[in-house]
Amino acid sequence: MSDRKETIGFIGIGIMGKRMSSNLIKAGWPLIVYDINPKPLEELKEMGATVGGSSKEVAAQSDVIITMLPDSDDVEKVILGENGVMEGIKGDSIVIDMSTIDPSVSRRISETLLTKSIKMLDAPVSGGPEGAEAGTLSIMVGGDEQIFHKCEEIFKGMGKNIFYCGPNGNGAIVKSVNNLLAGTMAVINAEALALGVKAGVDFKVLFDIISVSTGRSVFLKNAAPMKAFKGDFEPGFMANLMHKDLGIAVNLAREQGVPIPVGALSHQIFSQFKASGVGIKDWTITVKQYEDLLGIKLRF
Amino acid sequence: MSDRKETIGFIGIGIMGKRMSSNLIKAGWPLIVYDINPKPLEELKEMGATVGGSSKEVAAQSDVIITMLPDSDDVEKVILGENGVMEGIKGDSIVIDMSTIDPSVSRRISETLLTKSIKMLDAPVSGGPEGAEAGTLSIMVGGDEQIFHKCEEIFKGMGKNIFYCGPNGNGAIVKSVNNLLAGTMAVINAEALALGVKAGVDFKVLFDIISVSTGRSVFLKNAAPMKAFKGDFEPGFMANLMHKDLGIAVNLAREQGVPIPVGALSHQIFSQFKASGVGIKDWTITVKQYEDLLGIKLRF
Amino acid sequence: MSDRKETIGFIGIGIMGKRMSSNLIKAGWPLIVYDINPKPLEELKEMGATVGGSSKEVAAQSDVIITMLPDSDDVEKVILGENGVMEGIKGDSIVIDMSTIDPSVSRRISETLLTKSIKMLDAPVSGGPEGAEAGTLSIMVGGDEQIFHKCEEIFKGMGKNIFYCGPNGNGAIVKSVNNLLAGTMAVINAEALALGVKAGVDFKVLFDIISVSTGRSVFLKNAAPMKAFKGDFEPGFMANLMHKDLGIAVNLAREQGVPIPVGALSHQIFSQFKASGVGIKDWTITVKQYEDLLGIKLRF
Amino acid sequence: MSDRKETIGFIGIGIMGKRMSSNLIKAGWPLIVYDINPKPLEELKEMGATVGGSSKEVAAQSDVIITMLPDSDDVEKVILGENGVMEGIKGDSIVIDMSTIDPSVSRRISETLLTKSIKMLDAPVSGGPEGAEAGTLSIMVGGDEQIFHKCEEIFKGMGKNIFYCGPNGNGAIVKSVNNLLAGTMAVINAEALALGVKAGVDFKVLFDIISVSTGRSVFLKNAAPMKAFKGDFEPGFMANLMHKDLGIAVNLAREQGVPIPVGALSHQIFSQFKASGVGIKDWTITVKQYEDLLGIKLRF
Repeated sequence: MSDRKETIGFIGIGIMGKRMSSNLIKAGWPLIVYDINPKPLEELKEMGATVGGSSKEVAAQSDVIITMLPDSDDVEKVILGENGVMEGIKGDSIVIDMSTIDPSVSRRISETLLTKSIKMLDAPVSGGPEGAEAGTLSIMVGGDEQIFHKCEEIFKGMGKNIFYCGPNGNGAIVKSVNNLLAGTMAVINAEALALGVKAGVDFKVLFDIISVSTGRSVFLKNAAPMKAFKGDFEPGFMANLMHKDLGIAVNLAREQGVPIPVGALSHQIFSQFKASGVGIKDWTITVKQYEDLLGIKLRF
Repeated sequence: MSDRKETIGFIGIGIMGKRMSSNLIKAGWPLIVYDINPKPLEELKEMGATVGGSSKEVAAQSDVIITMLPDSDDVEKVILGENGVMEGIKGDSIVIDMSTIDPSVSRRISETLLTKSIKMLDAPVSGGPEGAEAGTLSIMVGGDEQIFHKCEEIFKGMGKNIFYCGPNGNGAIVKSVNNLLAGTMAVINAEALALGVKAGVDFKVLFDIISVSTGRSVFLKNAAPMKAFKGDFEPGFMANLMHKDLGIAVNLAREQGVPIPVGALSHQIFSQFKASGVGIKDWTITVKQYEDLLGIKLRF
Repeated sequence: MSDRKETIGFIGIGIMGKRMSSNLIKAGWPLIVYDINPKPLEELKEMGATVGGSSKEVAAQSDVIITMLPDSDDVEKVILGENGVMEGIKGDSIVIDMSTIDPSVSRRISETLLTKSIKMLDAPVSGGPEGAEAGTLSIMVGGDEQIFHKCEEIFKGMGKNIFYCGPNGNGAIVKSVNNLLAGTMAVINAEALALGVKAGVDFKVLFDIISVSTGRSVFLKNAAPMKAFKGDFEPGFMANLMHKDLGIAVNLAREQGVPIPVGALSHQIFSQFKASGVGIKDWTITVKQYEDLLGIKLRF
Repeated sequence: MSDRKETIGFIGIGIMGKRMSSNLIKAGWPLIVYDINPKPLEELKEMGATVGGSSKEVAAQSDVIITMLPDSDDVEKVILGENGVMEGIKGDSIVIDMSTIDPSVSRRISETLLTKSIKMLDAPVSGGPEGAEAGTLSIMVGGDEQIFHKCEEIFKGMGKNIFYCGPNGNGAIVKSVNNLLAGTMAVINAEALALGVKAGVDFKVLFDIISVSTGRSVFLKNAAPMKAFKGDFEPGFMANLMHKDLGIAVNLAREQGVPIPVGALSHQIFSQFKASGVGIKDWTITVKQYEDLLGIKLRF
């Protein structure tokens, strides 16, 4: 794109969206924002954003339209529905969906947009509210590679590690695969550490040895030490969001005909957290469950 | 112990034991060796070892007796059984069991030895035949801490990372916990990578992104790249041995009253490898199973 | 309804639909039939049915419109899509969807129809092609109770056990719950019987004892004896259809927030059958898998 | 055996053993009883039993020695240990172990007894304290068939359905296989019924339909209606005992090389009941767990 900063439409000003759009404003982009909840829009207005009246209106006035919404249905409605992005969008504008949704829904939306020659990128993020605040999100991008490069500066305004993953849907798939791994590691690390401590090994000894052995993972070395192993279970990345992401992976596996027995079981375990109400805590809650069940501590 | 190198009895001269005992000979320890299979004893004799006639006889002539045997029953028989170590051992000798066995069996044996004031260490290893050959094994040691320090030089003759894990049985427990993690990661990484590739993401892209994301683990970064991702499934560390180790963890969990649903499922999946005959391959065979099932390649 | 037999539109003339519609013709109902595949329509025409040109056209000429289609998307398209049932239907006609689909999709369709005051019943069946042929299907019906009673004669033209399950979607839910049980029992019976026989118990002895003990189920007593225990694995009810039904249950559980770990695992096991190609056999293939894996026979 | 009633030694006078031995006394057998806990022995003495001073002493004075003990270790110690049955037993006496233990331990004990030409039967029971009280136990018997017939009258003094299962260990295996089925059905029925009710189907409707469909099992039709579906969770057959039995099946599967993923998961779920303390309730507690988790009722 040209030197001039494009006008960005930002739809979905929740916990994540607000922090991401603020960073774009700070980085100098003109922003038009919209959300069904008017409250966060006021704050962005004070920062210099224009407030749009609908998704359609935002789309009509933007070069790039970013959506950051709770789930597949929301994205479908906002982009393809009545008064939605597709109704208002200009011919050479670009849609970037940064929500975490079903890859197959993402692909379907991009195909529908393509019937009007509109290009879309799927670009889910990881890093949570802290990463959004700090502008250090990881962003996994699927779609046309040229379009990706056109939007790279925008991504850099919100994140640090920007990955190009291939054609449409691939951003969503890569995030899903990564979280399938992360979520399962949250479960099996809790199982294994609880077993070792219950059987009589000192937690710190166990941690130190596994940290340099074949059982090592990001969960053990980075995620849990920042939260669970310090007794802090405030999210961070909510267990219920991990549940949602595992559900996306399970659904993708069903569509693709890939058996994922262990991943499906991890999904069910997070489903128990959700049903019992602890899912509003950090995803490292797997650790707390074992502490409470067995009367042990998995703490530094 | 004194400067003078103690005489070491080494019982169990299999794939691992032969390499480990050879390294001790090279490092200057006088060795008395025994195995029910006479063949490997000849080679060690040529290297300078004395060959004993029974476990009892070996024990009678050694300051430290090392056992390296297939499983719990073998260790129990060799140490506590007829013509076994306990019948021959001198009052101030030390027993080191380096086999991978049930922690509870290990504790029971050490308690029985203690009735004759014999001290024992449980010291299972990881690193496989290559690590045994190169003298770079990781060794996880349980037992009296002073006894551990007395034997540290001996461990250094066979391994590189020597960990003191606490009282008797703790070496066995730590190894079990570590392999519970490693084995499960072998399964879930195969599930997740297969899902991503089947859904249309390039393997290398997937690998590169997860390598720097929350889904990262030793399996992805170190274990599989050396073997499975190059299409090499010759062991290395046999899948059937991982099955055995996961079985030890499941059994420990049963004894300790710790639910490990995901770990137990991983154990069952390795049980399928064993039943179908592919368990004689490397433990990264989890990857191959998905390649064959789905007609995809998870390769660099 | 009145004495006069209503005109029935029947859309979806596959393996099941053809047998069900034939029975309705034989029972004296005037039928208008439609399928995107023209071939089976000819046979029904010879039996006396009228052939419609589209779902819309069938709907316009019928008092009751029955759909019997492969899955959720098909039903949605045929009823709500372009040239679909909703476009053609008369104000007081009734829609009966007898496909096995997601209960939530079924509820959504019935709500959409209701905006035009059209009443719908969800009425999935069990009993397979044999049951369809013989007119002995079980039919689980959800929707308005009065409408159910109006249609009872029609159901009796196709099935034997007709169950009223409550409001819209409940027919689909009951079928899903029942097959969640049946599918899991197919898996656990194979596991358990294989274990007993491998451990040395005669199959017939095992069967006879469990048949009168707490381990008894329909799978053991009725389903498997007709097929698997005689070495017959031709469908009957295809394993891939059980896979589909378990997938519906897993999805329903996700929507409802109900953890179903064992059910989800059973779904994954049928997913393996599908991926490996044996899913085209009878759902009692669980038994065959163990026969082949272990070299045993689970046969009378 | 002859008309004259043989003297029966009964070792292990717990909840089950006391009821079983009482029934034998009532049926006219001379009994010598022993337990490490002297209290229940007094009551049996009043009923006419002789009290022995040790397992050895009981064995020395009996024609048939019955053991009814908590687990594998206890049976091994009482029969083969110091002051145990094997030390005292007469040459033509018979040992009947009615405990529920590992089939492999049972086989090992019978082989050891055989070295002294002593014949043993393994004869675990099902039916719980009520069945023991009423003399209506099911008894699954492994061992020499002639010996079985010799002891049939004795079994009939305690139970109603007496099954001959084949060689030594087969009684234990059949019980294990049956309870693997029963325990898994307790889990999957709770999952499925909870799903249906949470999704909006009336419990009674669900029950009635599944009762005549392919999802039917003893759990649904007999076990749960007597307890869980009436809101009664007092044991009956304790969940912790089902956990023990599932553990025996899992262990047998490990020894026999039979993968049982669904059974192993059911075992883990009962392990959670045990860890959380609810395992002291009836095994139909699976139902209560879902009632509490989801705020629903699965009740008539």
